Amino acid sequence: MTRLFNDPAAFADEALEGFAAAHRRWVRPVTGGVVRAGGTPGGQVAVVVGGGSGHYPAFSGLVGRGLAHGAAVGNVFASPSAAQIRSVARAAHGGAGVLLMYGNYAGDVLHFGQAAERLTADGVPALTYAVTDDVASAGPGEAGKRRGIAGDLPVFKAAAVAAERGLPLREVRDVAAHAGARTRSFGIAFSGCTLPGADHPLFTVPASRMAVGLGIHGEPGIGEAELPTADEAAELLVATLLKELPEDVAAPAGQRAAVILNGLGSVKYEELFVVYRKVAALLAEAGVETVDPEVGELVTSFDMAGVSLTLTWLDDLLEDLWRAPADTPAYRKGALGEPEASAAPATPAPDTEDEAIPAASDASRRAAGTVLAALEALAATVDTHVDELGRIDAVAGDGDHGIGMQRGSTAAREAARAARDLGAGAATVLAHAGDAWADKAGGTSGALWGTILRSVGTALGDQEAPTAARVAEGVAGASAAVQRLGGAEVGDKTMVDVLVPFAAALTGAVAAGDGLTAAWDRAATAAAGAAAATADLLPRKGRARPHAERSLGTPDAGAHSLALITRAVHGVLLDHQ
Amino acid sequence: MTRLFNDPAAFADEALEGFAAAHRRWVRPVTGGVVRAGGTPGGQVAVVVGGGSGHYPAFSGLVGRGLAHGAAVGNVFASPSAAQIRSVARAAHGGAGVLLMYGNYAGDVLHFGQAAERLTADGVPALTYAVTDDVASAGPGEAGKRRGIAGDLPVFKAAAVAAERGLPLREVRDVAAHAGARTRSFGIAFSGCTLPGADHPLFTVPASRMAVGLGIHGEPGIGEAELPTADEAAELLVATLLKELPEDVAAPAGQRAAVILNGLGSVKYEELFVVYRKVAALLAEAGVETVDPEVGELVTSFDMAGVSLTLTWLDDLLEDLWRAPADTPAYRKGALGEPEASAAPATPAPDTEDEAIPAASDASRRAAGTVLAALEALAATVDTHVDELGRIDAVAGDGDHGIGMQRGSTAAREAARAARDLGAGAATVLAHAGDAWADKAGGTSGALWGTILRSVGTALGDQEAPTAARVAEGVAGASAAVQRLGGAEVGDKTMVDVLVPFAAALTGAVAAGDGLTAAWDRAATAAAGAAAATADLLPRKGRARPHAERSLGTPDAGAHSLALITRAVHGVLLDHQ
Repeated sequence: MTRLFNDPAAFADEALEGFAAAHRRWVRPVTGGVVRAGGTPGGQVAVVVGGGSGHYPAFSGLVGRGLAHGAAVGNVFASPSAAQIRSVARAAHGGAGVLLMYGNYAGDVLHFGQAAERLTADGVPALTYAVTDDVASAGPGEAGKRRGIAGDLPVFKAAAVAAERGLPLREVRDVAAHAGARTRSFGIAFSGCTLPGADHPLFTVPASRMAVGLGIHGEPGIGEAELPTADEAAELLVATLLKELPEDVAAPAGQRAAVILNGLGSVKYEELFVVYRKVAALLAEAGVETVDPEVGELVTSFDMAGVSLTLTWLDDLLEDLWRAPADTPAYRKGALGEPEASAAPATPAPDTEDEAIPAASDASRRAAGTVLAALEALAATVDTHVDELGRIDAVAGDGDHGIGMQRGSTAAREAARAARDLGAGAATVLAHAGDAWADKAGGTSGALWGTILRSVGTALGDQEAPTAARVAEGVAGASAAVQRLGGAEVGDKTMVDVLVPFAAALTGAVAAGDGLTAAWDRAATAAAGAAAATADLLPRKGRARPHAERSLGTPDAGAHSLALITRAVHGVLLDHQ
Repeated sequence: MTRLFNDPAAFADEALEGFAAAHRRWVRPVTGGVVRAGGTPGGQVAVVVGGGSGHYPAFSGLVGRGLAHGAAVGNVFASPSAAQIRSVARAAHGGAGVLLMYGNYAGDVLHFGQAAERLTADGVPALTYAVTDDVASAGPGEAGKRRGIAGDLPVFKAAAVAAERGLPLREVRDVAAHAGARTRSFGIAFSGCTLPGADHPLFTVPASRMAVGLGIHGEPGIGEAELPTADEAAELLVATLLKELPEDVAAPAGQRAAVILNGLGSVKYEELFVVYRKVAALLAEAGVETVDPEVGELVTSFDMAGVSLTLTWLDDLLEDLWRAPADTPAYRKGALGEPEASAAPATPAPDTEDEAIPAASDASRRAAGTVLAALEALAATVDTHVDELGRIDAVAGDGDHGIGMQRGSTAAREAARAARDLGAGAATVLAHAGDAWADKAGGTSGALWGTILRSVGTALGDQEAPTAARVAEGVAGASAAVQRLGGAEVGDKTMVDVLVPFAAALTGAVAAGDGLTAAWDRAATAAAGAAAATADLLPRKGRARPHAERSLGTPDAGAHSLALITRAVHGVLLDHQ
């Protein structure tokens, strides 16, 4: 369990602060994470990695020459927000674009995806790549849905070395994809971890049993079996990975592989070495040549007791990239010469606080007042229903929808108020509110709500008086963006089931000539019906929630909260029309 | 707990094998441990470190350029034997002598001390240095009795870099002593570790409490307190170390210090960083400049939950040595050029099996038959009494005296038989038997019994027929060696209470004109009386056994077994006279 902390809410920030204090030679803290102390050499693509805290040395420990140019670090087991990622990426940018790399988790996909869009809008070319090495998390036919675990390291490293050799952004991303396609991991676990301030572990495994397949966020395995001997564990790990070779590899014999035997936290070095002894023997037996094996803790899950094996099937290019030297706080290999004189970062790191408020028209400033009132009503509605939302979410989920919405909506209201007080127009108020929501709420719903506010803001602008048509256009844009970023469709029992009919009803009513308030009223009524209807649906396939089927008969929490909010906003429109 | 193993008895060997397989770039396995893959450059003093398994990266992970030239690795939490240490030292020897370095534990002091003596006899100049950094284990007035914990690293490193810079052996040892005198550690623990195959942890700490002061072999702390916050933990660690500065340091302000915040196994990186954040702030407040801090797992105790802080107070020399680059499996720092072309090891690594049997006279070969019979009787006696010895030992100790003696005496008998079959004389048979005993029995009594057999053998030689006077001389030598190496005196309730009067009675009787058998009879009678008398004694002060006072009324197990053995050997002498 995690024992040493102060305020659990401050844990991730304090850990990052202590990490940076201990590693000044390698890294420099920036808003949202760290970048290389020497910066990114001018003209080099920057590889920015990231994910939640609790996985050290992933992600901050992997920043340095020969590896990442920066790391965006979120809360414990929570994706960094798009704003944090953008901040780190701008600080790491060396003028040749940024590749954002992360493990394939819904929250990370969302936030890194949003960050890439915003960076591109900022004039910083940005692409993304999600690592999908965990064969236990989806079948070979759905390899794109797999999670990223310890395979992060060789895939990050391949891309980073390619960037250091001067490849342009698109080719760096191709190298990442090539390394990712040839990297597979599989793990087993014996106990879960207990997060700072929590009373119980995220999962438990009976004594003398093991979980087969593991997640690095305390996800339970896909099966359970007798506790193996070290040799049996090695046999299971190797046999599983030899079963699924890359498409262009016919047989293991004659192949070379980078090998990582990764400890998750409290399976210790001597145990890893006993297992590795057999792993090495089995790979040799299969005719596989091991290249620069790593045995230790590379991607952890606090003190979880577990071990995973990663193989990257090497061709000449990948072998060269894997063997290349690196010098980071937690991963050092070979000898590097003196650091290159680094160019000053081409794009200085922005602090959200420092962003100037764009000039706005008087009409848009007046509209900003209505927006602020709407956000105040929204936050008040969430406050009133926070326990109810938590209870609904707990039926099939982890019960945190209420407090997540509360954190996000409160932060959005405060940010909106501050921006309004500085004279911002409607678009800027909504952009600040959306960023604050995503930052503070964390998780998928935080990112999606951030997107909704930003989309509506973009349609309203800071210059013109908002019209019903512009509002409808903004809501329709939000609906499209949420579907694209979240990957859910109507019928998946998510907020999309409400957002889509709400947007359609609003657009239809406005097109039919209704004023904003009347149109919004119709749409909110449609939303309430759609939210109730989600009670009859099974949750979205592939949603990693245990006992999802239990939620039949209960509406989706995200859908329900959206419906409540649309009705509350209608009250504000009535007052302000 | 430790979950991944095969046969628990093979754990340490298999771990070393897997370690070496994963790190061929850095190390080469030899009997008893590992040496640098590239060997020791000719003319350079070799620094050979070591201790038990279970502390990775100590000790094998610290072998490589800029750090140790070799590591001797024992069983789990048990010192390597003198033969293992000698083997590693000979393989590491570059022609300029060997400094043996280890933490200050009775078993290590014994075995490394014996190894140094044998190396010197082999013509390999050897000195020893024991690290004593743990301030919790003895007061400032008894600093020489302190245990070695994470302070091993800076002290090993200082000596190793001094060796690489060409200092002669004595000066390398002086550098070690200088670094050791300025290195202090203090730790806290939250849970003990469970060894491979064991049912329960070595100690437990109640939930929400911590042990103050920790040992790296599962020794419980010196006190107990409420579980602290991370900041409180940092305050306790820093305040304790700032209380005891080196003699020539008047105040912390203006000083520089190497800092190690060491995790014992399952206090994880993020927690260490949260603690380090405050450690760094407190040191800065005290005016101490931190130099190249290390925050991570450097000297572990399997998955024990604990953390220790180490400070080495730097002068210019020590700062230079601490900042120097290093490249080992687990500790890499700065950039080293290409490896120096290394000379072939000046002293090839001996395998015990390969040691030639020296020529022996017929008389000595006949005497070897008697020696073998005595060792057979000895092993049979131990077999008969193994449970009784265990029960006696369990009163105040850990109850393993019976099985330790059984392992040792059985191995000694087999080794003696093999040497006798190859035509060895009495001295060689006893030397092989003594080495095998120390190797297989482990622990302090194993080392002492190995010494006894070797001492008697040295007095007998391989050429002349043994006389009563030579046997008495050998036993007297054994008695002196056991007191010197074990550090116990008569009255401490150890085997010394029997060995000293036994040797005195034997010498006296022989001097008075008795034949060997008669003299031995008298001496064995004296031994039995002395063993019984140990029941009235309190154990040796400072012996790290809980509840030692419980042993009043019970004889010492080591004294008792020695008395039984002297009587059994008398039976053999009667048969062979």
